[in-house]
This record gives sequence, structure tokens and C-alpha cells, in this order.
Amino acid sequence: MRVLVINSGSSSLKYQILGMEDETLLCKGIVEKIGLEDSKVEQKCGEKEIEKNVEVKDHEDALKVVIDLITDENHGCLKSIKEIQAVGHRVVHGGEDFASSVMINNEVIKALEDNSNLAPLHNPANITGIKAAEKLLPGVPQVAVFDTAFHQTMPERAFMYPIPYEMYKKYKIRRYGFHGTSHRYVCKRAGELLNKKKRDLKIVSAHIGNGASIAAIDHAKVIDTSMGLTPLEGLVMGTRSGDIDPAIPLFLMRHGYSEHDVDEMLNKKSGVYGLSDYVSSDMRDIRKARDEGNKLAAMALDVYIYRMAKYIGSYATAMKGIDVLIFTAGVAENTAEIRKRVCEYLTVFGVEIDDFKNEELNGSEGIISTKDSKVTVMIIPTNEELMIARDTKKIVDENNK
Amino acid sequence: MRVLVINSGSSSLKYQILGMEDETLLCKGIVEKIGLEDSKVEQKCGEKEIEKNVEVKDHEDALKVVIDLITDENHGCLKSIKEIQAVGHRVVHGGEDFASSVMINNEVIKALEDNSNLAPLHNPANITGIKAAEKLLPGVPQVAVFDTAFHQTMPERAFMYPIPYEMYKKYKIRRYGFHGTSHRYVCKRAGELLNKKKRDLKIVSAHIGNGASIAAIDHAKVIDTSMGLTPLEGLVMGTRSGDIDPAIPLFLMRHGYSEHDVDEMLNKKSGVYGLSDYVSSDMRDIRKARDEGNKLAAMALDVYIYRMAKYIGSYATAMKGIDVLIFTAGVAENTAEIRKRVCEYLTVFGVEIDDFKNEELNGSEGIISTKDSKVTVMIIPTNEELMIARDTKKIVDENNK
Repeated sequence: MRVLVINSGSSSLKYQILGMEDETLLCKGIVEKIGLEDSKVEQKCGEKEIEKNVEVKDHEDALKVVIDLITDENHGCLKSIKEIQAVGHRVVHGGEDFASSVMINNEVIKALEDNSNLAPLHNPANITGIKAAEKLLPGVPQVAVFDTAFHQTMPERAFMYPIPYEMYKKYKIRRYGFHGTSHRYVCKRAGELLNKKKRDLKIVSAHIGNGASIAAIDHAKVIDTSMGLTPLEGLVMGTRSGDIDPAIPLFLMRHGYSEHDVDEMLNKKSGVYGLSDYVSSDMRDIRKARDEGNKLAAMALDVYIYRMAKYIGSYATAMKGIDVLIFTAGVAENTAEIRKRVCEYLTVFGVEIDDFKNEELNGSEGIISTKDSKVTVMIIPTNEELMIARDTKKIVDENNK
Repeated sequence: MRVLVINSGSSSLKYQILGMEDETLLCKGIVEKIGLEDSKVEQKCGEKEIEKNVEVKDHEDALKVVIDLITDENHGCLKSIKEIQAVGHRVVHGGEDFASSVMINNEVIKALEDNSNLAPLHNPANITGIKAAEKLLPGVPQVAVFDTAFHQTMPERAFMYPIPYEMYKKYKIRRYGFHGTSHRYVCKRAGELLNKKKRDLKIVSAHIGNGASIAAIDHAKVIDTSMGLTPLEGLVMGTRSGDIDPAIPLFLMRHGYSEHDVDEMLNKKSGVYGLSDYVSSDMRDIRKARDEGNKLAAMALDVYIYRMAKYIGSYATAMKGIDVLIFTAGVAENTAEIRKRVCEYLTVFGVEIDDFKNEELNGSEGIISTKDSKVTVMIIPTNEELMIARDTKKIVDENNK
């Protein structure tokens, strides 16, 4: 089965085609700046790479470009679009309606629209992608895979905010968590690599990219995670603040900032970017600046690492133990220094890193703790698209039975 | 030396007189509803108790009432007001200006006024109390003891928020922490009781009253604490939310709540009170309602305990160890169930509670962990007024040398 995986953002459309017989990546690409003057598409099918400017006024146009390019004689990987047997969509917010992936129908779309209130930037873009795919690939089954779904097992003690209960009933304000597909992928992979059932393990999974979240997974179920109602809560990120005193937004408004200003500040000008006095949101630049003597960059890195360590400690407490710590996503997969410094805080749990392995395995999959470490520390490069394709295949196969 | 300790709130004035030769409490009282029609005063001097309505239009009136009552032939404990040799004031916010208690002079009052921006409800009330005392007890030395001072040892990684650095430079937005006098008192007391220098210990101090905060004290220095810019951050409290997704205030405003509404909601209608759908802000009522089958009260209690445990775990991580856990203030001193349930989460650190001692020592001072517990768990009733009186005596004595 060929599965087309679509990740549709407000002005971009990322895609992959996977051959599910052996889970091979056949093709990946991105259409960027949809609706803008300088829209472009990039695609890579094995050795064949192409990048060109295109005119795309909306997501339907973008998907047309994709369909042309994946079936292109010189640049594509399919002979005919009919080879696509299913489409898997990344959907950001499933609210409380979806605890697992589902076949998309009108009812599902209605529920996604209802949840748009919770993710006003993301869900409308995801829905646009689904509608374009329904139109251009009629009759091909489509599956929605939610960023929030894996976290739906959280108990009330973890997902309820200590604010008036009516806010939960009226507006569904609660912790949802994000990056669920990534956390689920790496946990499954950890079980395979350790040759243990993941249901026997207490796992803390640290997905540290430009966005970042941590999840506590106890016997295969998420029991807590750091992102909340929105992806703003939790860890320090590239440009997002993560946890702050909830009085700070109000304090800023009393000092003349509008609600919009504060929203922009906390989402786009905070994190290591803001804390370093705007050096960069990219940890490579932050570390480079630190190496060159920039004290605010060094401080931003300290705060970043310290908060990550505290979250891991709090989740080990929440699970009354920790067997496995997983580092995944861009920053955590590729930055030995950050893994090492986070783990130095975790000696109280018996974490012991093998410095040589930590350096050697940078960017690849494997165990970086010592044999004596009480906690197995791993790097596992994430693969959300593969997880989406797997769910899509499974649901379509079941539906065909 | 007789020290008058004053804790001046926006509409109340609490006071104590301590005899510092043997640190005896001679008298304590409170004037309530200052400026309102039904103002009243309550005082207790040993066996002598009095409660009566009084007319007090401001803090100066209130202090006049206090002075009359403490020197009252039938109800007081002093023959003359001249016996008061020093006044110690509780001051909420010292900002970055005060890392320890100070003799009050005009410069200090100016600095307190400058920091009022950071504590708009508290500092003006504290200043009013100081000015009334200066007027009515002329020539008597006055000392300010700050809620924030003990926390000024925190490193940048703990006190800096991941928001634009200019917000720190411009508005002094950072973590300050509160309840410092209480955390300092119980840490000192723990050292005495354990017959160890407190500078040898890694202590987590949990001050759990209607307001609640936790501090990590590593070798006598605070390295982190849960309250932040304001006393809203951190643990779940009676009516305060503690930590929430910082996007929630903004989300609520987009749904029609004003900045004032949100401020009121998070400070006065949240915590266990809001989460239980307004059962009560008092943990005794919450537990009673839970015992009677109220599921939201049970859930509020679960969230309350869970979050406390996670904070303790994160601070044990921050210090790379924990030797002593202290429970103090109203709720934690007097609620065996809460101490027990919090400690059940902490098995990963080797915490082991002696259930019998935990029940038996309820409300009093002592060790409640087992002999084998890797962490010494203690109840230490707090005494902020004694700490204020001690600081006051010390500073006045030094000044007289």
C-alpha cells in the first residue's frame, strides 16, 4: 500500500509517500508560502531532487502541484496517482473527541471544526488540507492522526487545571498535550530496541525540537505531559516561553501591552530567543554565541537545560520511578552537550551517561547510558510520518475487512 | 528587649509583642476591617482575652487602638508603651534591593515605594503600617523583614523567565518567591532539631497554608522556589491557581473576560475552591466533602497533592539530592493525610513515612519518617513573627554597638 501523508499548515503543505510493504520512504516534499507571491515546492524522491517556484493561491492548488510532481516522469516516484491507496493527515487538535486515529467522514470533519476554537491556527489549516485531498483524490480513504490523541489516557489529576470547574465544562479548558504521534513512535521503538514490551516500562520521552514537550508514559499510557491547552506551556522552546507566572500576561497588560502583543511576545519572541536578547531561536546559534562569550546566550542555555531536568525529575516522581529516558527530535537527537548536561542533574535517579557513546551516537539511534546506569538513556530519531502512515494503513485495512 | 511585630495588610493590622530575653510571646492581636463600619480588635495576652468593636478609619487609628490595648491595665501586657524597644515589620516585596532585613530609614521607604509596582496590593499597606508606627512610636527603631529576601540567593537559571530579556531590564520581571521568612525559620529549626548545621543539608521546605510555596534550599541557600513574580505561581492553593498554561489568561480574554475578571478568577476563584466547583478554599471542608462523596472535591485534592509531589521531585532533581523534607504552615502541619499521600509519590527518593508518627505528631514538631528512610521528613510549625522579632533585635543591637 502507498500512503500519502499530509501535514497541512496555515501557509505550507508537507508531504511524504511511504510504501507500506517495507515501510520505505518513497518521496518527501513541501509546498511553502501558499497564497503568497513567492510560493515554491521542494521534493526529493530517492536521488531525484527538485525545487521550483510555483503559483499556488490555496491548499487545493498546492495539492495539485504535489500530485503533478509525484507523478512527474522525471522527478516523481509514481506512475499514476491511482497508486495512492490512502491518505493520512496530521491533525493538531482532536480535543476530547479523539483518543486514537480515525477514518475521516463528515462527522469527523464536523468535530474538527468544533475543536478549532482550541487550536485556531492549526485545525482550520488541517481541515483545508483534508478538503483539498477529498476533492483531488476522490474515493481514496483518508485518515486523521491527532497530535493530542496519545495523551488522552492522562488521569484527571494531570489534565485538570486548578481554575473554576465551569471553565472546563464551558470551554473545555484542560491539558491536552501535543507531539503525541512522536512520543508514541519513540516509545514503541524503545520497546523494540530494548526487546521489552513497552507496557513494562516507565518511560520519560523528551521531544526537543524548536517546539518541545516531555511526556511521562507509565506502562504504555501517558500519565502526564508538559504542553497543555496549547503548545505554549511547559519547557523553554525556541521562541515560546513555556511555564511562567500566570500573572505575567496580566502584568504586561497593565503596562500597556495589548492581548495580541502578549500573545505574540510569549509565542514568538520568548524562549531562548527572547531570553538571549534575540540572539537566535536555534540552539546551534545559541551555543555558538555562548562559545564566543555571549553571557545571555549562556544563561538562556542554562535555563533551557535546568527546566528540562526539573520536568524529567517531576515525571519520575509522578510515575514513582523511571526505567527509560528517551531524547528525540532535532535538538535532542543532535546535541550531545544538552543530553549530557540534562543527565548530570539526574544522578539522584541513578542516571549515568557514557560520554563516548553520547558523542558517537549523536543523531542516530541507540543507548547512551552506561551498563550500570539505573535508567536506560536513549536517542531515538522520531518519525511522525511513519506513525501516521502505519495508523492509516491499519485503519484502512480494518475497514476493508 | 520587647519587640512589637507588625504585619500590616490592606484592611488589617496583625501584631505580636515578644520578650526577646527568652523569646516569649507576650501578646498577640489583630485589628480587622480597617476603614469599614464594623472594624474590630481582638487581643490575647496570656490568659487575658478581649474582642471589641472599635472605630478605626485608617492604619494610624488602628495602631492607636493597639497601643491603648497593649498598655491597658486589665487587658494588656505592658505598663508603658516605652517598654517597646523596637518594631519589626513584615514587608512583602523587597524586589532585588533587599537580600536581608534592614533598619528602616527614608531611603528604605523610598525603595519600598519603588517596588510597589511589583506588589501593588501589599507594599502600600506595609508602608502605611510603617508610617503609622514611626508617627506613634517616635524614636523607636524600626526594622523591615522581607518575604522575598531569603530567596535572593537563587541563581539566574532559576529566577529568569524565558521571555524577552528586556522585560527583566525594563520591568524587573523575574522570580522573586515569597514566604521567605517562614522557609528560613523552618530550615534553621530543622538544623537545630537534627543537630546538624543547616549548611550541610539539602532541604525541601513545603509551606502549605491557604497560600502555598515550596523552596529548595541547598547548603543554607535557596536555589529555587515555586512562587514567582507574584504569589500566584506554583502550587495549587486555596483560591489561587498556581501554574497553568500561560495561554489560558489570553484564551479567557478572547472569550469575553476582562483583564480584571481573569485576575480575580485566578487569584480568588481558582485553586481547590474553583476546581471543586466552589465547595471551599479550606482543605478541611474539601476533605469533608470528599468523605461525603463529592467527586469534584476528591479530584481537587488529588490535583493538589499530585502537584505538590511533582514540585518536590523537581527540586530534589535541581539539588541532585534531598536530605530533609519539611512540612510547615496550616494545612501541612495539621493534615496527616496530605503529608502521607505526598510522601507516597516520593518513594523513588527513598522517602518512607512512619504512619503512626505522622498521625501522632500532627500539628506539632518532629520527625515523621522511619529510621530507614533516606530522607528525613519533618513537621515544623512555622513562626514568622519570631523570625521577624529575632532579625529586629539583631539589627537594633548591632546598630547600638
